[in-house]
Amino acid sequence: MSDTSAVKALIFDVFGTVVDWRTSLINDLTAWSAPRGIKADWTALVDAWRQAYVPSMDSVRHHPERGFLKLDKLHRHSLEALVEKFGIKGLTDDDLHHLTLGWHRLHPWKDSVPGLTRLKTKFVISPLSNGNVALLTNMAKFGGLPWDLIMSAELFKHYKPDPESYLGACELLSLKPHEVMMVAAHNNDLDAAQKCGLKTSFVPRITEYGPHQSRDFKADGDWDVVAEDFEDMAKRLGC
Amino acid sequence: MSDTSAVKALIFDVFGTVVDWRTSLINDLTAWSAPRGIKADWTALVDAWRQAYVPSMDSVRHHPERGFLKLDKLHRHSLEALVEKFGIKGLTDDDLHHLTLGWHRLHPWKDSVPGLTRLKTKFVISPLSNGNVALLTNMAKFGGLPWDLIMSAELFKHYKPDPESYLGACELLSLKPHEVMMVAAHNNDLDAAQKCGLKTSFVPRITEYGPHQSRDFKADGDWDVVAEDFEDMAKRLGC
Repeated sequence: MSDTSAVKALIFDVFGTVVDWRTSLINDLTAWSAPRGIKADWTALVDAWRQAYVPSMDSVRHHPERGFLKLDKLHRHSLEALVEKFGIKGLTDDDLHHLTLGWHRLHPWKDSVPGLTRLKTKFVISPLSNGNVALLTNMAKFGGLPWDLIMSAELFKHYKPDPESYLGACELLSLKPHEVMMVAAHNNDLDAAQKCGLKTSFVPRITEYGPHQSRDFKADGDWDVVAEDFEDMAKRLGC
Repeated sequence: MSDTSAVKALIFDVFGTVVDWRTSLINDLTAWSAPRGIKADWTALVDAWRQAYVPSMDSVRHHPERGFLKLDKLHRHSLEALVEKFGIKGLTDDDLHHLTLGWHRLHPWKDSVPGLTRLKTKFVISPLSNGNVALLTNMAKFGGLPWDLIMSAELFKHYKPDPESYLGACELLSLKPHEVMMVAAHNNDLDAAQKCGLKTSFVPRITEYGPHQSRDFKADGDWDVVAEDFEDMAKRLGC
């Protein structure tokens, strides 16, 4: 482990790193649709919804003249296309709104809350997620995530991995990049943070994509901390 | 009490409303200086420091070409002038930094933490303060303030009472103004929030300025809730 003694704040990727979006959404959609008699391949829809995520942010990135759009709006737009594609009929505007907010009702991995609670005793802890502020706030209340503050790409009008998001987080914390550590289950997120001068910590979440997991089984960069999970990270960081 | 049934989030003024800045700073400065043999009229200095607060923000407001400055920087600038004025000698750069961060070490009023803890069970709770994000984050850890998120004028590059700060908070929360309630011990803060369409709640903090308190002894506007303190507010809002 390299020297991380200057680190004062830990900032976390959320989708996949802190919460299990795939299982949560499949269960949420299934439980909602069953009593309504609405049948669909919800697992396939969730996987397709997640596949639309990066292209939808790329669209914002490549068309700055259209202005920044919150992730809730991108999720809604993608869902509308998928409902059409999957031939799901009869959903009202309120239904689509409720389903979109499924991304606010994601369950933490089992080590997330105990690990964050320990890490919070020594560090400022915050998300740095592409989820919008309201999404992250509602998710924290839903899952009991003990954040000190909520930081989102929305605050910087730049989705990760744009450097403005990592450097904007350091500026809000009034810390230098080497005093801030990015925590993620995704090597590309850490690579972008490291290029901005932040410290980095990897945790594997090898079931994030279920049977479709194709990468991020292990650390593949020179990260400052590699931990088994958040409890192990707390131990390694002296909490 | 008017209809506040649509309110989903409470946003709080902090200096004076949640924390007792005057007593905290006088005690902080006195305790720091005594073992160092540095003598000064710390009470007068704190009162003068607070008097410099509004003019320093006005300066930012009236000179947008200079860019937005965090409150920590304004506090430091004001302190440097006051140290000179009060004839205090021998302070190092580190000393001035430590004293400026006294604004991060303010104690909550005794009802603040129990009241906020109750309010948090039903509402999203956040500061909306002119204090910068790092100041508010450190203060929350210092005093045990259980915020769901941290919102600051810094996020909007507009100090209160500019409307951009109140409306920016609603936008981040993905809520309409009538779904958000501003809580303050200052009638002028509530007046500005109400003009933006927010709901309002007043709590008196009649010792905030010590012997210099000249206003805000009571509600003097048509506020939606007037409470004795945060515990009473929780009761009135059904928590």
